[in-house]
Amino acid sequence: MHNCGRFAYDARFPRFSVIRHSHTMELRPLMARKNAFYAQSGGVTAVINASACGVIETARKHRDRIGKVYAGRNGIIGALHEDLIDTSKESDSAIAGLLTTPSGAFGSCRHKLKSLEENRAEYERLIEVFKAHNIGYFFYNGGGDSADTCLKVSQLSEAMGYPLQAIHVPKTIDNDLPLTDNCPGFGSVAKYVAISTREAALDVASMCATSTKVFILEVMGRHAGWIAAASGLAAQQEGDAPHIILFPEIAFDSRRFLARVKRTVKKHGYCVIVASEGAQYKDGTFLTDSGVRDAFGHAQLGGLAPQLANMVKSELGYKYHWAVADYLQRSARHIASQTDVDQAYAVGQAAVEYALAGKNAVMPAIQRGTGKRYRWSIKEAPLDQVANQEKKMPRQYISRDGFAITEEARQYLTPLIQGEAYPAYRNGMPRYVTLKNVAVPRKLKRRFKVQ
Amino acid sequence: MHNCGRFAYDARFPRFSVIRHSHTMELRPLMARKNAFYAQSGGVTAVINASACGVIETARKHRDRIGKVYAGRNGIIGALHEDLIDTSKESDSAIAGLLTTPSGAFGSCRHKLKSLEENRAEYERLIEVFKAHNIGYFFYNGGGDSADTCLKVSQLSEAMGYPLQAIHVPKTIDNDLPLTDNCPGFGSVAKYVAISTREAALDVASMCATSTKVFILEVMGRHAGWIAAASGLAAQQEGDAPHIILFPEIAFDSRRFLARVKRTVKKHGYCVIVASEGAQYKDGTFLTDSGVRDAFGHAQLGGLAPQLANMVKSELGYKYHWAVADYLQRSARHIASQTDVDQAYAVGQAAVEYALAGKNAVMPAIQRGTGKRYRWSIKEAPLDQVANQEKKMPRQYISRDGFAITEEARQYLTPLIQGEAYPAYRNGMPRYVTLKNVAVPRKLKRRFKVQ
Repeated sequence: MHNCGRFAYDARFPRFSVIRHSHTMELRPLMARKNAFYAQSGGVTAVINASACGVIETARKHRDRIGKVYAGRNGIIGALHEDLIDTSKESDSAIAGLLTTPSGAFGSCRHKLKSLEENRAEYERLIEVFKAHNIGYFFYNGGGDSADTCLKVSQLSEAMGYPLQAIHVPKTIDNDLPLTDNCPGFGSVAKYVAISTREAALDVASMCATSTKVFILEVMGRHAGWIAAASGLAAQQEGDAPHIILFPEIAFDSRRFLARVKRTVKKHGYCVIVASEGAQYKDGTFLTDSGVRDAFGHAQLGGLAPQLANMVKSELGYKYHWAVADYLQRSARHIASQTDVDQAYAVGQAAVEYALAGKNAVMPAIQRGTGKRYRWSIKEAPLDQVANQEKKMPRQYISRDGFAITEEARQYLTPLIQGEAYPAYRNGMPRYVTLKNVAVPRKLKRRFKVQ
Repeated sequence: MHNCGRFAYDARFPRFSVIRHSHTMELRPLMARKNAFYAQSGGVTAVINASACGVIETARKHRDRIGKVYAGRNGIIGALHEDLIDTSKESDSAIAGLLTTPSGAFGSCRHKLKSLEENRAEYERLIEVFKAHNIGYFFYNGGGDSADTCLKVSQLSEAMGYPLQAIHVPKTIDNDLPLTDNCPGFGSVAKYVAISTREAALDVASMCATSTKVFILEVMGRHAGWIAAASGLAAQQEGDAPHIILFPEIAFDSRRFLARVKRTVKKHGYCVIVASEGAQYKDGTFLTDSGVRDAFGHAQLGGLAPQLANMVKSELGYKYHWAVADYLQRSARHIASQTDVDQAYAVGQAAVEYALAGKNAVMPAIQRGTGKRYRWSIKEAPLDQVANQEKKMPRQYISRDGFAITEEARQYLTPLIQGEAYPAYRNGMPRYVTLKNVAVPRKLKRRFKVQ
């Protein structure tokens, strides 16, 4: 009705006839075109909104084919709760502002739909909601888990006789999706971590003669060392920080670690360590799961960085400092990589174009060109090859001693941090948009409780 | 001799006569003009090198009056060890690069010269080294302690019959120097902290419905809450993060704190806390000095943020995340405040101009204009009124409940974070300069051991 309403105010026609006109001539194509549903999934990034921007702006260019873009409030949970956001209520400039706004503008969640056998009710509920809101396109913006969900929704909708075109839009700072050369969201974290490492290292270097000798930066990456690896870009020549990178892929050996710290301090006067939160012992136990309890029986506070710092202090006696970047690293839109922003937008745009081309159960993937100069393009990846696959960091990206990245890793990582996609500023602060996030009126009587 | 040597290679004159010429005609003015000594003191900042740039570039414009600028390697310790750096060996472009390079390009230290009674030997050593290297200008770039040293050096040199012009160049992220409206170094930390708080808050807000509800960012500021206060600039309207700021100035009360966290989560769905590392109980004990020991008897690891997070978790049960910015905040040249960079340069420049005007025992201070639009100028502040005075944050800058900043604080802080003084980039990384830092040949036989 809302779409018909648009014509009711057209001054070229008398009000009455327009309404009639719209019902006879306009309503048919309106029935034929479907709405789209878009949801953000899992941990947010500095550029996931750039993908949202790509989806919505591209959909807006094809109003003849795509009705409205509804977003899930707080991710897929919004669909299950029938809590949809009507993005058509946002101005073009607000949507354009998503390109430079970090984190998830519609909210995200970590809710993973279980297998069809375990929780068929959730899948059926999704289809029920999509049907009620005439949704024919499902754009799911996330990592491995959401690729899996996306595939299942596509399959089940087919089986249930309400076919949906389900397109997965890749996103993860973990950079662990297969078939794509890299994942939107990773490049900006990589840039932030590389720059922060270089800056903090300059700080330590300038004071190490009489003060702090060891600095430890803890970064994200529970299962793969991609983010820690990016810190290696801070080093330009022999002796530059970071002097030690701790990867989850390399078993932690405290004796070797401490020996390397000592050697580095002796040689360079200071030692900068970048530690992946997922650093682990040979048996797969995380260093942070050390079981140490404080006097009150509380699990040991703090993350890996303070733990390593304590080790360095008690074994080697060096003065230390440590930092834990945590959310700062994945929300740092102020220093996002231009390459990353461009790619995040491009996968959003491609997802809609794939949908318009009739594709289903696919993901726009980033393909790296073969030439010496970095080029990339978007290619189609079948979702059944994406879902539930983790791309590990190749062993040849880590130096033989396990403490640094190789030249091959550098070749891979460097293009991903190119360009500074600065946001606009007002009054000294970035102008990040806040959307209105107007709810779509509910159509279903049944409420659904997410387990 | 080195200055004469410059002329020995002038092709316009036969080698022999030039040397004679330089000895008869050039040496006299060279003897009359004095060299300058510049040292960086205490914790470094994103813009202390901008002050160095101001000092050196201005001195280079007055070669008729100022010979060479020698820098102390690792601060004042370099002077005591007669380990001077010859900045004349650096190209103009390298010196210009200091404007956009964080941390201390010549090295810094926290060595505080004790009182004259306690360690007269150090002061006498300084004068001995200055005399040996024909140094007539002493530019000391630091905070309160170095202002005190600067004053004493000026006084003692007078008494010892080798008068020096000692000018203090203000620098401290702590923003606690008196007589100056603000301190170079603070504005950039303030900008970094305000932006990081806003970015991380967007992250938490987008996931709080089903995930992290409390986020804690620990920032520097052991004695004053200036840096924590700056995070308040992230909030634009009621309900915006940060929801709680913990200042060292306000006695920490865990009951009140937890009640506020709970209320905020209930009202807004999440709670962002920015905690000054100096947060303390009513009796002046730092929260981080809680005396808690782990199972091995080690002092509790980690800083304030994990401690507060643990409190929130155990008392309220909320999922949390925390970050400790540590050195990242004070080295974040990639997002330095333009106002801060301009002021840091200006105080360096003014220091040299003061010296040329014959001034002694003064500090260029920043004076805020009175109009509605922010304007600033440099004025002269007598060192005896600067040394050993700490400017506390006014109580009226903190809200009555002690958890936020007031409008007055906002008025004060906002101009200091204006403008983005981006460095140049190459290959995705900031182009920070590394100086050659060539040592000046020693002239003294006596070695000196710093205690």
